[in-house]
Amino acid sequence: MTQDPLVIFTPSGKRGRFPIGTPVLQAARSLGVDLDSVCGGRGICSKCQVEPSFGSFPKHGVEVSKDAISEINPVEERYDRVRGLKPGRRLGCQATIQADIVIDVPPESQVHKQVVRKRAEAREITMQPSTKLFYVEVAQPDMHDPSGDLERLIAALEDQWQLTGVKTDLHILHVLQTALRKGDWKVTVAVHLGDASQPPKIMEIWPGYYEGTLYGLAIDLGSTTIAAHLCDLQSGEVVASSGLMNPQIRFGEDLMSRVSYGMMNPGGDQEMTKAVREGMNQLFSQIAEEAQIEPHLIVEAVLVCNPVMHHLFLGIDPYELGQAPFALATSDALHLRAAELDLSLHPAARVYILPCIAGHVGADAAAVALSEAPHKSDDLMLVVDVGTNAEILLGNKDRVLACSSPTGPAFEGAQISSGQRAAPGAIERVEIDPVTKAPRFKVIGSDLWSDEEGFDASIAVSGITGICGSGIIELVAEMRMAGIVDGPGLIGSPEQTGTDLCFLDGRTYSYLVWDGSADGGPKITVTNRDIREIQMAKAALYSGARLLMDKFEVDSVDRIILAGAFGAHISPKHAMVLGMIPDCELDKVTSAGNAAGTGARIALLNTDARAEIEATVRKIEKIETAIEPRFQEHFVNASNIPNSAEPFPILGRVVELPNVTFNAGGEASGRRRRRSR
Amino acid sequence: MTQDPLVIFTPSGKRGRFPIGTPVLQAARSLGVDLDSVCGGRGICSKCQVEPSFGSFPKHGVEVSKDAISEINPVEERYDRVRGLKPGRRLGCQATIQADIVIDVPPESQVHKQVVRKRAEAREITMQPSTKLFYVEVAQPDMHDPSGDLERLIAALEDQWQLTGVKTDLHILHVLQTALRKGDWKVTVAVHLGDASQPPKIMEIWPGYYEGTLYGLAIDLGSTTIAAHLCDLQSGEVVASSGLMNPQIRFGEDLMSRVSYGMMNPGGDQEMTKAVREGMNQLFSQIAEEAQIEPHLIVEAVLVCNPVMHHLFLGIDPYELGQAPFALATSDALHLRAAELDLSLHPAARVYILPCIAGHVGADAAAVALSEAPHKSDDLMLVVDVGTNAEILLGNKDRVLACSSPTGPAFEGAQISSGQRAAPGAIERVEIDPVTKAPRFKVIGSDLWSDEEGFDASIAVSGITGICGSGIIELVAEMRMAGIVDGPGLIGSPEQTGTDLCFLDGRTYSYLVWDGSADGGPKITVTNRDIREIQMAKAALYSGARLLMDKFEVDSVDRIILAGAFGAHISPKHAMVLGMIPDCELDKVTSAGNAAGTGARIALLNTDARAEIEATVRKIEKIETAIEPRFQEHFVNASNIPNSAEPFPILGRVVELPNVTFNAGGEASGRRRRRSR
Repeated sequence: MTQDPLVIFTPSGKRGRFPIGTPVLQAARSLGVDLDSVCGGRGICSKCQVEPSFGSFPKHGVEVSKDAISEINPVEERYDRVRGLKPGRRLGCQATIQADIVIDVPPESQVHKQVVRKRAEAREITMQPSTKLFYVEVAQPDMHDPSGDLERLIAALEDQWQLTGVKTDLHILHVLQTALRKGDWKVTVAVHLGDASQPPKIMEIWPGYYEGTLYGLAIDLGSTTIAAHLCDLQSGEVVASSGLMNPQIRFGEDLMSRVSYGMMNPGGDQEMTKAVREGMNQLFSQIAEEAQIEPHLIVEAVLVCNPVMHHLFLGIDPYELGQAPFALATSDALHLRAAELDLSLHPAARVYILPCIAGHVGADAAAVALSEAPHKSDDLMLVVDVGTNAEILLGNKDRVLACSSPTGPAFEGAQISSGQRAAPGAIERVEIDPVTKAPRFKVIGSDLWSDEEGFDASIAVSGITGICGSGIIELVAEMRMAGIVDGPGLIGSPEQTGTDLCFLDGRTYSYLVWDGSADGGPKITVTNRDIREIQMAKAALYSGARLLMDKFEVDSVDRIILAGAFGAHISPKHAMVLGMIPDCELDKVTSAGNAAGTGARIALLNTDARAEIEATVRKIEKIETAIEPRFQEHFVNASNIPNSAEPFPILGRVVELPNVTFNAGGEASGRRRRRSR
Repeated sequence: MTQDPLVIFTPSGKRGRFPIGTPVLQAARSLGVDLDSVCGGRGICSKCQVEPSFGSFPKHGVEVSKDAISEINPVEERYDRVRGLKPGRRLGCQATIQADIVIDVPPESQVHKQVVRKRAEAREITMQPSTKLFYVEVAQPDMHDPSGDLERLIAALEDQWQLTGVKTDLHILHVLQTALRKGDWKVTVAVHLGDASQPPKIMEIWPGYYEGTLYGLAIDLGSTTIAAHLCDLQSGEVVASSGLMNPQIRFGEDLMSRVSYGMMNPGGDQEMTKAVREGMNQLFSQIAEEAQIEPHLIVEAVLVCNPVMHHLFLGIDPYELGQAPFALATSDALHLRAAELDLSLHPAARVYILPCIAGHVGADAAAVALSEAPHKSDDLMLVVDVGTNAEILLGNKDRVLACSSPTGPAFEGAQISSGQRAAPGAIERVEIDPVTKAPRFKVIGSDLWSDEEGFDASIAVSGITGICGSGIIELVAEMRMAGIVDGPGLIGSPEQTGTDLCFLDGRTYSYLVWDGSADGGPKITVTNRDIREIQMAKAALYSGARLLMDKFEVDSVDRIILAGAFGAHISPKHAMVLGMIPDCELDKVTSAGNAAGTGARIALLNTDARAEIEATVRKIEKIETAIEPRFQEHFVNASNIPNSAEPFPILGRVVELPNVTFNAGGEASGRRRRRSR
């Protein structure tokens, strides 16, 4: 007796023997090979394309002859004629096995395909969306055995797709009968697959085979901006990205001022809820228009945000978040309907909101954890999301700690005398000559240094208007390296520093960066008060990280990841000179860009990732800096540049900091204050 | 070693031994005795009242001394002072066991108490509502272990009430934090307990202990009227009943004219949906006002209706129900939210709609089945819900069959020359003297027969205006019994009948019932055309029942139940003389009143009953009369009065029908037409 042909699927390597004539799709399914199909093997959807390989495969121990697969059949021929089939490709539901064969499943035919992320070190995203399309053939009504059209559709989904317990949204009932009859009892339905607490639900129905795709939104709702990525829920591809200012800004720039607005104005929280939801809807129209799709094809949205934004978006007064013990109304992940949040998406669209970690550590921090995955790391990772409030995660696969620290808006250029938002004209990079003490710099909008030829022309339009967050970090660090500022944070006098760029400015000295006054431009300086603001901001950030290291019982970390749009622009060396982040090998300090947005995208495309981050968040140890006595001690030490207590030996090997002291017994170098949240 | 005291609970008879000092509530719980508690044994709610019995109980084998229960404690004393405790009653959570004792749980302390129904033969309703109140003490927020207020509330529900997987509606998050703090971390929550496809959900929250109760609505949405009972979800009591005309009447009196309205007028179905929902909301305000409760305390509604009403209420175009194969959009029971149906109840209120049996046999018929329970009957029961469309159920605990039959509106007085709705002035009861052939009758609004003294005065206000449905049934039957009408349905001439009350009226004879023309009133007659209308209506009803009997392979039934408001007024004898219902012992023909409304109430108060009727409906065998060849044959036979083929032997023992024939070779007695639905 001869054996059935051996079928080997690549890249999975899954193999099995099947009788001659078995369709490839059927063989794939019975082996659990990841091969897509929307039409269920009816030769309609073409999602099950495979590529048979021929020749000798010593690795697999098979010889594959040209006739190991059936000849192209009329269904494939028609498909090729109408839509075109790539050379070598076959429809898995039509081609049948004739002899031993090796069959490749190309990435686009895999359901659980990998979505490529830009950063090499980032983990891949595996497609596992919550909503999928299913083509079904539904039994016609029978007077002898009356049943509802819906019940027969549900029976077809169970019978043809093994989906059990499927329910439907009411709106489907309004269009169901027409769709079934228009499609001659063949329809495509979008089914939200549900989870432990909710059954699968039919979200949309189309007569016949629906050619299109479904979309989802990954939304990062920040205090200042709302950013969204529109993703294809089948390929995982980002088809459009867009953003707009958070319309809540008119109620207050920072979180605390919005909490206060709600406290001072009856109904103020509801105004803010309305504003942010309207802003979201505006963003949705904008992004749908950009992608040229109908907004109702957006069936899902995943949202990440800080706790105050979280509560205001949900219509919860954030009052309790403004005072100890900073109690969240709810901390777990939320499964909501777009309609109950007044969001203009598909009428049955779902909204998933990641869990909050604590009263100051929100769903955005959870999303950063999902994207950067400290809980999966062998190395001890420090992840810092730099913003008005810094969220800090420290951990590895054994244990993850989290806290937040109120850095204030200095890193965003606010409360700095010449500070400004990152925009054309802002100084973003700085170098100070250690001998002449003169600065050179780069300005957003130009690639040239200020002492290079053509610089003036390149900034003719923008001018030089101020210093942005990353610029002030480099500037203060360079001033420290050049001996213009001492460890405690005092700017030296012209005599002490040997440069007239330092000048008496009231009771302290300031440093002149750029004098544009001859051309009617600003005079850009760093005042000693600016230094103090940066000291406090960086001390808050460092002491949060240091506190987590104490709890973890370590004195150093293996890797540091700077997350957030701002984090992407920070120079690791300057951040370390400033003592903003712990001592670490410079090449181990990397930027993750908008990690919160990436986390939202992962949760959108992969429902397993939702379960993963929910479990991770439950296990994260939350540290409340406000009630940790050592936080104050760390803060005092970290007010020095880089630090009055910590040695920073790794930094010491790269940079030598001049040992200067400008204190003439005046202002106390240890002065500190804690910013209110 | 002495044994622990023996505790015997009545009426359950459950018994067990417990250590001295065990609270009665705790003993009850560990024995599974049905003893209510909302506060969980904290001496707040007083729902756990019990009555200890003292003395000798030879039946139980115990002697109970006066000190077998602890003395009244301060909590009970305070409760008695403030609210009053009935003599002999104790709070089960405070009183503790001291020696052998017999403890009675009075009905009002039972969760699953029996709700008394008016009819002796009807089964009891056991309380098992879907929404219940729970008092909980919630842990306060802790900065060292941050969690959301909701998550701590959910943990408290799990810990204190063993409710697992509880979710919440979004609106609870808006009020949660305030309620918890106002109640000093003690709150009462209303929880919808969920079912197989939905988790338990928090629906409402009150600070501290909530004294009030929750309400539910049982709604019978008829083509003509919408009737609702408002029920206390704790006691099961009906606290108010109300009804109004279905505002859809302006689009058509009967179902088919409404289906046509939808077909002829684009958007007509949506107009009708809007109208019926507005009508429901009006009814809700009306009933809440009557009961003097806030409409938002109504957390649940159960709805029964025929398939066309079902679809129009849900916003589904009933087009398909107007033509074969009469396909329902959905037939299963539906769990919906009041908000998605635009109903003004509690914001999170749920709506449960019973399953439809078939395209012509709706949720109202399912409700009748639930109320009359043929599927639990040893006898073979025929249940007939008489209306424009008659729903007919035949079965016993082995097997239940259902069909509907288009009787038309004749039984409601329509299409009858002197017909009218049942209202004051309508003739409702009739007797014809077999000798004089003269009628006497009763009129709605008067208790006197027309030949009794004082009759004229008693009807002075209403007058005598026409004949209602039950009146025309009695009249035609009496005419048959008096020999005025023959078997085939012809009215005899004065010569043939021997009375001048029969008179030539066009080509056939009519019978004069009342001549009010001298006083400016109407002349009330029965024309031969009226007889034809009644013949067709009763033939349709009978042939439906007979068809089910064929399918069941029986020639007689044990019991007949006439359901529906109209059914309550039908005289069994006259209905049988007419041949409207099968031959049966007269005392086995009973009326169930508004059985559909009762079924709705059962489903409202007992969630197990929902599962029961859903399972029953799945098992009911549906017969579509339109495609059954024998239906036509039965219809022809049943056009005779009582029947040209069936002998009606039991009726024969009670009533002797004169063997007259008035046919002079004119109109064919077998003439028939089928009414369109």
